[in-house]
Amino acid sequence: MASIFTKIINREIPAQIVAEDDNYIAFLDIMPLVKGHVLVVPKVEVDYIFDLEDEILAGLHVFSKKVAKAIDKTIKCTRVGVAVIGLEVPHVHVHLVPLRSMDDINFNREKLKLSKEELAEIAETIRKGFD
Amino acid sequence: MASIFTKIINREIPAQIVAEDDNYIAFLDIMPLVKGHVLVVPKVEVDYIFDLEDEILAGLHVFSKKVAKAIDKTIKCTRVGVAVIGLEVPHVHVHLVPLRSMDDINFNREKLKLSKEELAEIAETIRKGFD
Repeated sequence: MASIFTKIINREIPAQIVAEDDNYIAFLDIMPLVKGHVLVVPKVEVDYIFDLEDEILAGLHVFSKKVAKAIDKTIKCTRVGVAVIGLEVPHVHVHLVPLRSMDDINFNREKLKLSKEELAEIAETIRKGFD
Repeated sequence: MASIFTKIINREIPAQIVAEDDNYIAFLDIMPLVKGHVLVVPKVEVDYIFDLEDEILAGLHVFSKKVAKAIDKTIKCTRVGVAVIGLEVPHVHVHLVPLRSMDDINFNREKLKLSKEELAEIAETIRKGFD
């Protein structure tokens, strides 16, 4: 069965996409730790990041760098943190989290509840950060 | 001034090194979240991961994959999680954390206090996991 992320890639379910190429897609986490929290996902549906082929793994992080630079430019933060946990959705996803403190990347903390309109606005802001 | 990680690379201060090549080094975090928590560091002293050149960034994650595979083989865990935060030591470091639950990668939780002997034993265990 297609993962929820494959459904986003296939436009079967909506998401606030901020960047995409042939191999990767980046969209807003709908349960963000902070505003501007983005997920970067390889289009190949693999569960565990360290089962990705080297080339796809390497490209995933180079793609994530482009997205992080756009976040850095547009979202108020000290820097963008990275986390890959993978105990929930069985499709690799890199969390890019704009950080101001260590607690901003604590996955045990309560997630933000943002409206569709707020998410759309944040995505539009980040999209403007790409060169 | 050389970072604490550059001092480890230069063997000016000791560490439990588990893997090394021309560009990267991996050693045990001395304040681990869980047993088997490893830091992977590029030898080039750059503060922010997204300031690394694409090639070094890509290689950092391919090198981390080799280390993660060794951890997976030798340390009891569901999978190895990844985090890059970088609000403390100003030299890029990828945390590889053997996970059994989400809380295992909560950086706000109290760190383990392990003896030198325990750290040496864990490092020796992980070293055996490399092909």
